[in-house]
Amino acid sequence: MHRFYVPGFPDADEFDLPDEEARHLSRVLRLRAGDRIAVFDGAGREAVARVELVGARKVLARAVERRMPAQEPKVRITLAQALLKSDKMDRVVSDAVMLGAAAIRPFVGRRTDVPMTAMAGGGRRQRWQRTAVSSAKQCGRAVVPPIHDVVTFAQVMTAVRDERRLMFVEPAIGRTVAELGSLESERPEQVTIFIGPEGGWDPREATDASEDGVTLVSIGTTTLRADAAAAAALAVLRFVWRE
Amino acid sequence: MHRFYVPGFPDADEFDLPDEEARHLSRVLRLRAGDRIAVFDGAGREAVARVELVGARKVLARAVERRMPAQEPKVRITLAQALLKSDKMDRVVSDAVMLGAAAIRPFVGRRTDVPMTAMAGGGRRQRWQRTAVSSAKQCGRAVVPPIHDVVTFAQVMTAVRDERRLMFVEPAIGRTVAELGSLESERPEQVTIFIGPEGGWDPREATDASEDGVTLVSIGTTTLRADAAAAAALAVLRFVWRE
Repeated sequence: MHRFYVPGFPDADEFDLPDEEARHLSRVLRLRAGDRIAVFDGAGREAVARVELVGARKVLARAVERRMPAQEPKVRITLAQALLKSDKMDRVVSDAVMLGAAAIRPFVGRRTDVPMTAMAGGGRRQRWQRTAVSSAKQCGRAVVPPIHDVVTFAQVMTAVRDERRLMFVEPAIGRTVAELGSLESERPEQVTIFIGPEGGWDPREATDASEDGVTLVSIGTTTLRADAAAAAALAVLRFVWRE
Repeated sequence: MHRFYVPGFPDADEFDLPDEEARHLSRVLRLRAGDRIAVFDGAGREAVARVELVGARKVLARAVERRMPAQEPKVRITLAQALLKSDKMDRVVSDAVMLGAAAIRPFVGRRTDVPMTAMAGGGRRQRWQRTAVSSAKQCGRAVVPPIHDVVTFAQVMTAVRDERRLMFVEPAIGRTVAELGSLESERPEQVTIFIGPEGGWDPREATDASEDGVTLVSIGTTTLRADAAAAAALAVLRFVWRE
């Protein structure tokens, strides 16, 4: 069944599909009144709906029964990701949504290759949010994790100070997740994982983080590419907490 | 220290760098006689070497001391990957090398979108092998896993019949890795993991595999994109066996 993203749909008996979703339904998939679709609101609710009307610019639908959404991980993992170049950041956002991230916090670190001024206007953030919606549609998640404003590394550290924090580093610096035996029994409610930029962390960032109580950790014995590390970390942590 | 791929270097006191590596050393990095580099042979051996001579078309080096290579996983995992479109397959090869795959077996399944005839001439396989070398250089691995010829799904199944086999499927079909409690205590020597094409497995492939003793398994509760599934599976399995 085709899935459509309709924020707020549970608040009304009948609802319009957002423009982009309506166009996709009518012009690409060529569905008609009477067809059944799935809708999700991005906040964890999902339903089977019936298409009531397909107009030139409007698609009206009605929820007919609840549908079990994909189960969300109980340990909420926020991904704090150093900004990467455009296509790589898109990949990271898409992967993170698919692997259950609860939120994404992009940040600029010392070695980040992308200037914060390139973020002005919010165009990139809107684009990431669209990527997140598209990934949620594809992977079956009913939650679209929020993507926060781009801030500095110090600002993210402050924002998540009270959470369990893991910084993913090169194998020479941190112990592997497998060596951190305690992680499995901990089962924190909120975790933030930090993934560095393409040039790797500045040594001072790792030292500061470590002194501030952040655990430095690596995956396996190799250096992961910046755009692949988040997915590997999220996949492993889901397994660590048996989700 | 910059790393260079020099197959067979341990067989001689002095050795030439392969053409592409020589060009990179002299023209891009502009290294000179006397500089130190790291060399690895793709079969697990690594050394510190001294550049002896930088000529117009030739770079001569001499190994001066052994260097500890990144540790290889003890459980050897072969990735059997359904062919994907060009850029996606490149990503999969790069990720698989980085996450410790012992070998890669590309195959064509029922729903594979790429015809086997597109493989004629071996150009793509050479390209994947270059991608594998480049990923090994970047991630610090001294092993470049072999990439086998493209075959059919049935042929891969036959080739790895005696190994522990896991087929990664959608969450509705298989239990999650976490639910397969036995996997952790098993610790097989050789494992092959099967990742399907962009359209997902044909149901008959999953049924046939299951009847043939292959374990169907999923990662988490969402459907992973075909080009992201291998990395997630490899990362999780390394952790499962504490590597």
